[in-house]
Amino acid sequence: MDVVSSWLNPVFLCLFYTKGRDFELTQLESAKKNIITNEMKRVAKDEHIDVEVLRNLIAEGKIVIPKNKKRNFKKVIGIGEKLRTKVNANLGTSKDYCNLEEEIEKLKVAIETGTDTIMDLSTGGKLRLIRKKMLEHSPVPVGTVPIYQIAVELMDNNKSISEMDEKHILKIIQQQAEDGVDFFTIHSGLTKPAVEKMDQQKRLMNVVSRGGSIITDWIRKNKKENPFYTLYDEILDIMKEYDITISLGDGLRPGCINDSTDYLQVHELMVLGELRDRAIDKGVQVMIEGPGHIPLGEIMTNVQLEKKICKGAPFYVLGPIVTDVAPGYDHIVSAIGGAIAGSCGADFLCFVTPSEHLRLPSIEDVREGVVAAKIAGHIADIEKGVYGAKQWDYEMSKCRSKLDWDGMLNLALEKTKPRKFREERLPTNKTVCTMCGELCSMLPKK
Amino acid sequence: MDVVSSWLNPVFLCLFYTKGRDFELTQLESAKKNIITNEMKRVAKDEHIDVEVLRNLIAEGKIVIPKNKKRNFKKVIGIGEKLRTKVNANLGTSKDYCNLEEEIEKLKVAIETGTDTIMDLSTGGKLRLIRKKMLEHSPVPVGTVPIYQIAVELMDNNKSISEMDEKHILKIIQQQAEDGVDFFTIHSGLTKPAVEKMDQQKRLMNVVSRGGSIITDWIRKNKKENPFYTLYDEILDIMKEYDITISLGDGLRPGCINDSTDYLQVHELMVLGELRDRAIDKGVQVMIEGPGHIPLGEIMTNVQLEKKICKGAPFYVLGPIVTDVAPGYDHIVSAIGGAIAGSCGADFLCFVTPSEHLRLPSIEDVREGVVAAKIAGHIADIEKGVYGAKQWDYEMSKCRSKLDWDGMLNLALEKTKPRKFREERLPTNKTVCTMCGELCSMLPKK
Repeated sequence: MDVVSSWLNPVFLCLFYTKGRDFELTQLESAKKNIITNEMKRVAKDEHIDVEVLRNLIAEGKIVIPKNKKRNFKKVIGIGEKLRTKVNANLGTSKDYCNLEEEIEKLKVAIETGTDTIMDLSTGGKLRLIRKKMLEHSPVPVGTVPIYQIAVELMDNNKSISEMDEKHILKIIQQQAEDGVDFFTIHSGLTKPAVEKMDQQKRLMNVVSRGGSIITDWIRKNKKENPFYTLYDEILDIMKEYDITISLGDGLRPGCINDSTDYLQVHELMVLGELRDRAIDKGVQVMIEGPGHIPLGEIMTNVQLEKKICKGAPFYVLGPIVTDVAPGYDHIVSAIGGAIAGSCGADFLCFVTPSEHLRLPSIEDVREGVVAAKIAGHIADIEKGVYGAKQWDYEMSKCRSKLDWDGMLNLALEKTKPRKFREERLPTNKTVCTMCGELCSMLPKK
Repeated sequence: MDVVSSWLNPVFLCLFYTKGRDFELTQLESAKKNIITNEMKRVAKDEHIDVEVLRNLIAEGKIVIPKNKKRNFKKVIGIGEKLRTKVNANLGTSKDYCNLEEEIEKLKVAIETGTDTIMDLSTGGKLRLIRKKMLEHSPVPVGTVPIYQIAVELMDNNKSISEMDEKHILKIIQQQAEDGVDFFTIHSGLTKPAVEKMDQQKRLMNVVSRGGSIITDWIRKNKKENPFYTLYDEILDIMKEYDITISLGDGLRPGCINDSTDYLQVHELMVLGELRDRAIDKGVQVMIEGPGHIPLGEIMTNVQLEKKICKGAPFYVLGPIVTDVAPGYDHIVSAIGGAIAGSCGADFLCFVTPSEHLRLPSIEDVREGVVAAKIAGHIADIEKGVYGAKQWDYEMSKCRSKLDWDGMLNLALEKTKPRKFREERLPTNKTVCTMCGELCSMLPKK
């Protein structure tokens, strides 16, 4: 076969076509067209999963690869079925505490500690500048909640949040897309009928989502449907252009275990299920956000419900926080909820820091939050049978059985604290530790 | 009816008889004889449970009230079915780190933070003095593991642990009983056939229990049955005299998730089931100790198995630790395991501190350990439907919905850290916090 005829060979033509289109299609569209992108290859390699299996799960909407076409970063990841449970760290300033350098430091700590994504939830200072710095410094996908910027701009102009209009919404979404954000939380599922229902019935905490509370207020005052719902197609069009993943927010998530899995929460989830279909049809990658405060015994119900109603779309949970009574220790509460949610099939755990319900987190809080969520994710991965998860525990235990301290400290999920602990209280016989000393069960007996 | 005839009234006679016998019978014997003791009344009142229901559960061996007849202390508690999940804090010196004052300080911190019992696991310094000080300072039940003192005395006399003899064992048990210890961990379930089985098969970590490793070594070297098994009746006789609760230790508990729920572990549990019956028959209150390192997905199996094989005896778990890879954060790992174990029916959670697998814990570690275990216990209590558990969360959330900060801080499971966090970063508008500021979802919108 000569060169000319090989050029006309349909396989070659197809490859050429593929290569050209690769820059325009979203990951989802590529997957649907049986095209394997470079991002898919990277994720498949990283996760030790067959790239065809991965492509198929993306095509089915069960895995997303959040990555804005305009942005390049080091750690491209997939989120969803058959993959390692991922962890997100929320960062960002507030009006009361705004220090860009500290936020960048938090970002570094979160990355060091192993977060898979970050979200910039800033509401204080120069929001666009902060976002650009975060995007510049982050080697992982970056998410935002555009309604925060909209609300802050209205407040800065002494306007009521209920004055938020369609033009402003689309402008900010376009601006953040252009800046390179990889995923947006959009609260399109909180609808007027739900707000009317809420006003008829009792809920202890009503709305605890910041975005949700803004939209609820807007719906009540304007007596109109949620603009993020009515503008949904336009929003998807922008997001598709950049291949931004939509993370459908749960504005009506329960804010205390008393309100868990109630009519309002499930009502919103049903709407999210419809919105998931519309995103997939348009070629926009989609995740679903979930609770929130729910008791341990309802976690499996919540995960199964999301997986059924939203046809296996990646489930991004905040916690869950399984008791309300432990402020200062909500990272632990949330690790308990997250480990179980992950084991039941949740794909993506938003960290919760010790400062939750109390204040904007400190740098140390961010570290603790990421560690707790990573622990939860790994425990879930053992249950999910994720590649390498059990092996990690096996290797650690092998080092323990040999009293190989360097090995143990190197394999630790977080390395600074165990090293510090060990060094602070060294035993006389360095083979063992100060807990059991010569009575260590791993030592041969005399 | 005159006074004389009322004295002859059978009801009065019975009451008189009861009062007299009360000093001799164990709680279990009293319960079997339909006698309600003062301790039962205190526990019933504290737990908001009908005292007859409680008595019946004690008679069935499903609840214990650990309290040495020789000792009086403030916080008498019950452990078992239908009751609040209890928490134990392990304290005590080691050869490498022996500071009595620090241990007493740890005891105070553990009590302050809400531990329900403590164990003195000292292996360094003057053991009897330390124990007496702990008993003196503890307003809660105190447990010990007598084999530690036996081993330490042998080592101090330059003897091999395999030289441990029956006389020494009974002497120390008698001494600790006389000192007032309320519950003993005794590893009677680790038998010669199990050790022979272990030597034939592969286990990654073999024996990780200190007591278990001493007994395993003894069995191997002496080629005889475990003396704590052969002396079981004599040990029970001493314990019955003082109404000390026996906590049957799991010397073969898995030391890593690789070894979980294996033949050796279940073999020992089966022996513990037989030993439970023998204790109940003798009138000695009994608990069963459980793992240890097991993956999340095996927790329910482990709890159900214990409850079936040991006929509902209170289950006292160490963790469980659901991953091996997070030294420095094992309090979080263990809170995850504990919350699930408790939800599945475990009754008593042994705390694990951040220092686990690394060193003898510091005072701060003890606080963190107790808090993490208390969180796990409370989450379990919500699932168990324990009196007041959900109401606590309800009250906290009511305060949150009203932005009642004093209310929130007063209701917090641990109060020092949330208060410090709040004060360190106070918002401009004290109604809210520095996280959301004016965007707080609980504030009415402008």
